Amino acid sequence: MNTIKTYIKDNKDRFLNELIELLKIPSVSADSAYKKDVLRTADFVLDSLKKAGCDKVELCETPGYPIIYGEKIIDKNLPTVLVYGHYDVQPADPINLWTSPPFEPVIKKTEIHPEGAIFARGACDDKGQMFMHVKALEYMTSTGNLPCNVKFMIEGEEEVGSESLAWFVPRNREKLANDVILISDTGMIANDIPSITTGLRGLSYVEVEVTGPNRDLHSGLYGGAVANPINILTKMIASLHDENNHITIPGFYDNVEDLSSEERAEMAKAPFSLDKYKDALKIDEVYGEKGYSTNERNSIRPTLDVNGIWGGYMGEGAKTVIASSAFAKISMRLVPNQDWREITELFKKHFESIAPASVKVLVKPHHGGQGYVTPIDTIEYKAASKAYETSFGKTPIPQRSGGSIPIVALFEKELKSKTILMGFGLDSDAIHSPNEHFGVWNYLKGIETIPYFYQYFTALSK
Amino acid sequence: MNTIKTYIKDNKDRFLNELIELLKIPSVSADSAYKKDVLRTADFVLDSLKKAGCDKVELCETPGYPIIYGEKIIDKNLPTVLVYGHYDVQPADPINLWTSPPFEPVIKKTEIHPEGAIFARGACDDKGQMFMHVKALEYMTSTGNLPCNVKFMIEGEEEVGSESLAWFVPRNREKLANDVILISDTGMIANDIPSITTGLRGLSYVEVEVTGPNRDLHSGLYGGAVANPINILTKMIASLHDENNHITIPGFYDNVEDLSSEERAEMAKAPFSLDKYKDALKIDEVYGEKGYSTNERNSIRPTLDVNGIWGGYMGEGAKTVIASSAFAKISMRLVPNQDWREITELFKKHFESIAPASVKVLVKPHHGGQGYVTPIDTIEYKAASKAYETSFGKTPIPQRSGGSIPIVALFEKELKSKTILMGFGLDSDAIHSPNEHFGVWNYLKGIETIPYFYQYFTALSK
Repeated sequence: MNTIKTYIKDNKDRFLNELIELLKIPSVSADSAYKKDVLRTADFVLDSLKKAGCDKVELCETPGYPIIYGEKIIDKNLPTVLVYGHYDVQPADPINLWTSPPFEPVIKKTEIHPEGAIFARGACDDKGQMFMHVKALEYMTSTGNLPCNVKFMIEGEEEVGSESLAWFVPRNREKLANDVILISDTGMIANDIPSITTGLRGLSYVEVEVTGPNRDLHSGLYGGAVANPINILTKMIASLHDENNHITIPGFYDNVEDLSSEERAEMAKAPFSLDKYKDALKIDEVYGEKGYSTNERNSIRPTLDVNGIWGGYMGEGAKTVIASSAFAKISMRLVPNQDWREITELFKKHFESIAPASVKVLVKPHHGGQGYVTPIDTIEYKAASKAYETSFGKTPIPQRSGGSIPIVALFEKELKSKTILMGFGLDSDAIHSPNEHFGVWNYLKGIETIPYFYQYFTALSK
Repeated sequence: MNTIKTYIKDNKDRFLNELIELLKIPSVSADSAYKKDVLRTADFVLDSLKKAGCDKVELCETPGYPIIYGEKIIDKNLPTVLVYGHYDVQPADPINLWTSPPFEPVIKKTEIHPEGAIFARGACDDKGQMFMHVKALEYMTSTGNLPCNVKFMIEGEEEVGSESLAWFVPRNREKLANDVILISDTGMIANDIPSITTGLRGLSYVEVEVTGPNRDLHSGLYGGAVANPINILTKMIASLHDENNHITIPGFYDNVEDLSSEERAEMAKAPFSLDKYKDALKIDEVYGEKGYSTNERNSIRPTLDVNGIWGGYMGEGAKTVIASSAFAKISMRLVPNQDWREITELFKKHFESIAPASVKVLVKPHHGGQGYVTPIDTIEYKAASKAYETSFGKTPIPQRSGGSIPIVALFEKELKSKTILMGFGLDSDAIHSPNEHFGVWNYLKGIETIPYFYQYFTALSK
């Protein structure tokens, strides 16, 4: 199967150009202004699956954005791989911080990506990584190297909570039946240190509103005499962490698993340089929960972050006003065993309880999902590991990620199959940030590695 | 001089229409997008002073917006009244909360203003109150009732700190020489409870920026491991008040005068209903510094309010991001004896000192001004008091205001004369808020009262 290397060499430019076309469509699912573009992207994905050799493709309507389904069944007795990905992207703002427009992809060399990286919103998360699977399928079908059955399920609401997918999956267990779910929506440690994500954090995302007086007030005439909703909001948010950066919501840690010192020692072996980490972010110090390392804080520990805050006068110059209301978007990353609905309830109850009588508080749950841990003694993990060994020449390191792919837990529950998280992005790819990019080398390496997984998984399943 | 009543009756509609024309120009000094309009407003004021009978008017250039000067000197041996006001207005946002466009004035009846009130940004603060003086002058000159000399100084930067005025006044002591300064830029207790403002709070206005990582980060991959600038900002702001709502900045209270229990008892006599106050703002509870009443909290005590805060994702839906920076606009109301420059320095030093090493903090002072207290045993105060008695039929109550007119202290220092604050607006007029308005009755009552002040002040000065 060394033909894959040749195939990639021969088709490299087309592979890049096709991805660039996909990245040009601003499929921002969080902002209804982009609805048409999100739908255009769905059609693009449908079409590319057809071209890649699926013998059945469907645009499946849902209460929200459509889910693109594709399949190639070569033999009912052979195992089936279900590929999941998403065609929607995060909002691009703050636009002014992009060095090139987010939806006009360009390839630029970087220190970490000397062969160049594609700069565009969605380049890595997840259009680029999802499209690796489409191109890998094209290779396998066009060269007679597809060793098993394959199904694709590509959604358009991952960045806003996958609600329609949660509606779709239980209604299509038959159609989606599979032996393993394959996802590339995570990262690896470095191009020379391949890793496979074996854990994901859950998520609870809420929006809060604190309202005081019925109108904006003059801060001179009323200042000091009425509750200022912004001051109150800052007090309430600040109180959600104690001096050790533990989260103060009662019951929040009840179901958090305490890893054994052995497990923590094992984790600590993953190569990590705190200096490089700080230098990459241009910060003098890291910051987080007392008693845990940086890698533990962003993987095995739950967190609470304000993702956005606003209220009062944000314009040029000065306005001496007391705003009637103040707002914040707050997300909590959860670890396995924390139930996101329960945590959302605990947050709501607590946040309402700490509000002084002089304001009214509204807590609106946005969305959430469960955390997940994959075992590493399974056929699918072994197949993935061998695939990396073949293409990278190195055994990948199992690694817990701080990110969330809420639907992974859903898949296990509804489809009774395990998920393999084969991520080829890097933390420095700036996903969810201005100047998101994806290494050309990583894109092609993914396309190279995926067919090996099919091969080994089929072999090991016999 | 009862001819004033008749004169107002005969010219009421014109007085209203002229003010409406002035209110149509969006002279927002805080936003450079309105520069042309601010300049047009200056010309409008110049022109109306000429028409009102000034025999000399000047548009005085400054480093910022021009100051309009006008004078009518009838006899060097007679006293001179200097009228101060401003032609700029606060920004109108949030626009969506206005029931009619902020720069399309309309007269609507309200519970408190059964004869109708003019709704527009600047209606009360300060175009409406400033224009009362122009129309009062018109009456006095056109009917031979001007008993003394008069000078006008109308600026265009009051809402952004009067920097150009602070530059202009020391350079024009001669031109501005006067025996009393008359300002209508404050309020009174109620239409049936006239009051004269005898105290103003000082102001220190700063903007703060907290910066963590060099770019926005994915809150899953980095959440819990790096300082989130928004979380840090809320912690820092929250810490500026203790559990009794005292301000925690070291040295902040050092020069705050403690009023005697007699003075506080005197203040407490001013008619005030806490229930009406809460009901007008639709709040269940007031909130403020322990040990002080609502009227004390917003007049004789210093305060710290966040006037605006922003950072991260403020759009529709959810974005799981850690913002690189977070921002806030913070203002402190100061009492007499607190030096605003010193307080600004104390704030800067303290705010920088409480930032953790994991973020960088920038404190940008915007502007400020000193507090002020007027004695009530002076000729000018007696003249003002008699003027109210004549037009209202009631003795006005001396009252400390929580608002700030920073230049009043400057006037005393540079021009060696006292200021009389004859305000005819009401707290409910929503200045600095959506739906700012000014009662037609109040507008005309002001025009009626002002000439009596000139009359009594001239008489008492003999």
